[in-house]
Amino acid sequence: MGVGSKRVESFSESPETAISVPAAVSLPSSEGVAALPGMEIHRVCLPPDRTTLQKLGNRVSEIFFPDDPLHRFKNQTAFQKLILGVQYFFPIFDWASEYSLGLFRSDIVSGITIASLAIPQGISYAKLANLPPIVGLYSSFVPPLIYSLLGSSRHLAVGPVSIASLVMGSMLSASVSFTDEPILYLKLAFTSTFFAGIFQSTLGFLRLGFLIDFLSKATLIGFMAGAAVIVSLQQLKGLFGIAHFTTSMQFVPVIASVIRRRDEWSWQTIVMGIVFLLVLLTARHISARRPKLFWVSAAAPLTSVIISTILVFFLRSKAHGITTIGHLPKGVNPPSTNMLYFSGPFIALAIKTGIITGVLSLTEGIAVGRTFAALNNYQVDGNKEMMAIGLMNIIGSCSSCFVTTGSFSRSAVNYNAGAKTTVSNIVMASTVLVTLLFLMPLFHYTPNFILAAIIITAVIGLIDYQAALRLWKVDKLDFVACLCSFVGVLFISVPLGLTIAIGVSVFKILLHVTRPNTLLLGNIPGTHIYQSMNRHREALRVQSFLVLAIESPIYFANSTYLQERILRWVREEEEWIKTNNGSMLRCLILDMTAVTAVDTSGIETILEVKKMLGKRMIKLVLVNPVGSVVEKLYKSDALESFGADELYMTIGEAVYDISSQWKPKV
Amino acid sequence: MGVGSKRVESFSESPETAISVPAAVSLPSSEGVAALPGMEIHRVCLPPDRTTLQKLGNRVSEIFFPDDPLHRFKNQTAFQKLILGVQYFFPIFDWASEYSLGLFRSDIVSGITIASLAIPQGISYAKLANLPPIVGLYSSFVPPLIYSLLGSSRHLAVGPVSIASLVMGSMLSASVSFTDEPILYLKLAFTSTFFAGIFQSTLGFLRLGFLIDFLSKATLIGFMAGAAVIVSLQQLKGLFGIAHFTTSMQFVPVIASVIRRRDEWSWQTIVMGIVFLLVLLTARHISARRPKLFWVSAAAPLTSVIISTILVFFLRSKAHGITTIGHLPKGVNPPSTNMLYFSGPFIALAIKTGIITGVLSLTEGIAVGRTFAALNNYQVDGNKEMMAIGLMNIIGSCSSCFVTTGSFSRSAVNYNAGAKTTVSNIVMASTVLVTLLFLMPLFHYTPNFILAAIIITAVIGLIDYQAALRLWKVDKLDFVACLCSFVGVLFISVPLGLTIAIGVSVFKILLHVTRPNTLLLGNIPGTHIYQSMNRHREALRVQSFLVLAIESPIYFANSTYLQERILRWVREEEEWIKTNNGSMLRCLILDMTAVTAVDTSGIETILEVKKMLGKRMIKLVLVNPVGSVVEKLYKSDALESFGADELYMTIGEAVYDISSQWKPKV
Repeated sequence: MGVGSKRVESFSESPETAISVPAAVSLPSSEGVAALPGMEIHRVCLPPDRTTLQKLGNRVSEIFFPDDPLHRFKNQTAFQKLILGVQYFFPIFDWASEYSLGLFRSDIVSGITIASLAIPQGISYAKLANLPPIVGLYSSFVPPLIYSLLGSSRHLAVGPVSIASLVMGSMLSASVSFTDEPILYLKLAFTSTFFAGIFQSTLGFLRLGFLIDFLSKATLIGFMAGAAVIVSLQQLKGLFGIAHFTTSMQFVPVIASVIRRRDEWSWQTIVMGIVFLLVLLTARHISARRPKLFWVSAAAPLTSVIISTILVFFLRSKAHGITTIGHLPKGVNPPSTNMLYFSGPFIALAIKTGIITGVLSLTEGIAVGRTFAALNNYQVDGNKEMMAIGLMNIIGSCSSCFVTTGSFSRSAVNYNAGAKTTVSNIVMASTVLVTLLFLMPLFHYTPNFILAAIIITAVIGLIDYQAALRLWKVDKLDFVACLCSFVGVLFISVPLGLTIAIGVSVFKILLHVTRPNTLLLGNIPGTHIYQSMNRHREALRVQSFLVLAIESPIYFANSTYLQERILRWVREEEEWIKTNNGSMLRCLILDMTAVTAVDTSGIETILEVKKMLGKRMIKLVLVNPVGSVVEKLYKSDALESFGADELYMTIGEAVYDISSQWKPKV
Repeated sequence: MGVGSKRVESFSESPETAISVPAAVSLPSSEGVAALPGMEIHRVCLPPDRTTLQKLGNRVSEIFFPDDPLHRFKNQTAFQKLILGVQYFFPIFDWASEYSLGLFRSDIVSGITIASLAIPQGISYAKLANLPPIVGLYSSFVPPLIYSLLGSSRHLAVGPVSIASLVMGSMLSASVSFTDEPILYLKLAFTSTFFAGIFQSTLGFLRLGFLIDFLSKATLIGFMAGAAVIVSLQQLKGLFGIAHFTTSMQFVPVIASVIRRRDEWSWQTIVMGIVFLLVLLTARHISARRPKLFWVSAAAPLTSVIISTILVFFLRSKAHGITTIGHLPKGVNPPSTNMLYFSGPFIALAIKTGIITGVLSLTEGIAVGRTFAALNNYQVDGNKEMMAIGLMNIIGSCSSCFVTTGSFSRSAVNYNAGAKTTVSNIVMASTVLVTLLFLMPLFHYTPNFILAAIIITAVIGLIDYQAALRLWKVDKLDFVACLCSFVGVLFISVPLGLTIAIGVSVFKILLHVTRPNTLLLGNIPGTHIYQSMNRHREALRVQSFLVLAIESPIYFANSTYLQERILRWVREEEEWIKTNNGSMLRCLILDMTAVTAVDTSGIETILEVKKMLGKRMIKLVLVNPVGSVVEKLYKSDALESFGADELYMTIGEAVYDISSQWKPKV
């Protein structure tokens, strides 16, 4: 124990000296246990001492600034810092000086392409939110301009999106009917948009962007599929020409409504609607098969709108069952600050709708931005992007726009059409402006069924059953989360479905923590490597030793379990020894590499296990505890009860050193 | 790549053959990178193939049967199994045959000792729950008898406990006043006890006992301290002789009530109350200092009750301000099945109170049972113990008892008085029976202030400020959880305070998962060991390599963070290389030892990082991925994109093998 006690002392010294001096202790090479060559024993040391404040600072910077956003300001002059700061907040200045005619040509082509998609989609998505079609066009004009100033993604095409629109429509319609109280409904929609923007920019400003990570991809797959099914069914109203339809967003009432209103079905509408739907689906299918033909699906909606409008215009005297959009006001966005609603019975509804649509639109916008950034090898700062999207929605809510974000489908078209910078958004906004100023009368005879067909085509693409199958194959619990959000959205409600899915995802994390793996390790012959005996058949038991790896932090939530489980391993090992006439168990080695944290309950568990094993004359050895664990063991004085031959850096060294101590006694 | 591709193929073969054949590939020893001797390279293999059902079964048995409760039934005859089964459900049969006169002598002494404590405490705790004192005695008679049949702890002393009593009192009094509607109140108390029992035994039967682990010790320390402060303040009613007092359980109203009712203060009561309180506190202090003198604090309550009763009896004509218990009915527990309340407006309150008191009493009972079992080296099966406590409460609720469990203070006295088996509970119950049958009139003149003094003495012991200080020292977030439950209970309410504290504890787990550590590893010279460069100053960088350890599973909740963090490490490393003129970064090694799980988002992150590094000509290598991670990578086809020289078992082998491949090219 002579050498050992020296090593124990160095624990208590280390924090004072603040530097852990390497003091490898070499032992005389013995005859080599298990035919291993003699080896040096390395001691486990404490991490360098830091004050509570330093640790707090480190922790806070890891939580809120993991990407170190200020790193480019380092070692710069004040003027450069100013320029970098302006460029940071308005990324447009970052590349404006390098902007060229070539880039502009690409951006014009892609901007006009997405405009041809954005106009019909804008009108359709406004209808999806039960809003007047013109609001969809307003929302495709102001927000893209704001984003092109503030946004850091070069490929994001901004405007209304299906998920946020349908959630807003379903949540507001549950309490207020647009047909009965159009002004109140409009007020609530703008107010929700305002709160969505406030919530988004606050998340970004407080650098709490990581909160949206809790909407896992599995949850979103299920959610989008459920929403797509509901929305498609809702569109049967327009496709079948039904006049009286439920505003409910659940599966059963919607289906019931379709069947009960058979008398209102209009065969002209149904035939034309289905023909155009098939055309649109075929166009989408062609573009999906051959990305080079992206323009087929990009041009299809506007083409369909034009053709169907002309058709309906000429048939207007014959087919009375076909409903059209009707009169749309000309002119740019009117201000809507006077429409914001800050007191009254529905304020809670507006806030709730704002937060949920805000989260959903953020999730889509950030994910799309990151996807295209990764494809083009540039970085998108999530938190800054949130501020940009939030500000865009706040300004939008004051200029008659509803919730907008980066749309996946339009951004993909934008990218494929060769967009190079956010100038394509400016081009798109200009095209929408021209439409708003001069072309509005042309939409008078646009039939509702074509909008329904466009919406169905858009949302059907959200049903990603192959991704769901992959989840089932790879991770059953991810699949359960996906299924929960699908079923929840379809049969209960959007917020509850999402809540359940997030609950399942969090439960999965907790389950992993509550019931962590413990592995029996064995030595791989001829090496110092120890691996799971279950996985590596060549791994062998080491006589008199039991080597376990704990695969989780030790927390209050699993400390009781781990204590019982470790003692069960010991009991089973002793039973195995009895039946196999092995040599007595003398040492339990816990590989602590994966025990990345420990709390006060965890420390007590370790001490408890040590005490219980001590009574049975079994030594407990910890191997490779990580820095924070050693630090906590030290602070709680638990480390004092561990001798030098009870803490090692590797399993190999522990086995070698301990068994060489036993040798002489035998 | 010749040898390499062979190894890749073996991945796809392995699951079919179900056994991973060890096929170590040895490379020709090169000149030794970083002066290391030539070494064998070990391949990473898949865990043995298991069906979904097998995995599910394994998982379920780990969740619900981690202690393998049926292991002693293995390899036994049917008759032996029957006997073992009876012994399993009625542990009394396990040791009854070995019971001796010597054991009985110990149990008699300890049984009578705890009875002397149980009688005054029973009366006091019933008052704490705003129940008639006699219910406290009933609850010290039937439940101990039931527990002695079913319980597996040998040292648990069963009866009413302070926390559960006060929570029941506070929750029921918030809706129903005992003075106004005594029968309804009593009904609700018995019904809550019934539901507590149902909840407890269901938890045990479904083997969901681990759910109570989520009440971490830190939470409980804060909760108990907050509850103790509130209860002590509430007892000022009895201690000051105040007749009209608030039933509220919050800090502010209670303090306000004490001050506002100064006119009702009775100086005789105050003087005597404080004298007895000091005596009791001194007795507790003496026993705490010298465990051998445990009988001082054990005998003090009963002695105080006797002395104060005699005092009040003789002073009854002079001191009118002193209130006493008054008439108590003689006789054993009357049945109370007709008092159970299964319909009506308060049923939800009864269920809620039952669940919360049930959880709290379980937590205390199980923790106490485990503590004394650990001291005496025997095991307590948590789930079975829950069934025993639950059944005890169900039967109790039908025989005029309120919530009972193993009490910490009385069990400690029991243990110190030499109790050997649960027979001491039977002795205690018999003593209470004698009291119920013959001694009830003696309590007529027992003053209320002595009950208040007994309660204050009991609950003050629950304020463990030293434990709170230790939490602060060792784990700041544990301390925050503790503080939250303390403040929550003191100023808001018991259920909300507990909920907040559990929330903080769960948040802590999630925070650790959301922002895991990533460590920069360096080589310890002359070895194959790689350790944190921050912690081990002797660890050195390896040229052209960046070695990182990820200290957490990779989940949806942290996949974005980890991706950004890893890329930031790479960027910082490249900047470091630039300023230090190091050789170009060519390989990023991720040590996956602590990545104990991965989900679909995590897999995507790994592939994304690999792709982004690939664009910069940096190779990504995974080292020592655990079984489940390799399995998921394989199932999601992600493994195919990793070549043989991109997966290694140890960092040392990876560095050696990869740099020996580079050598010839240079």
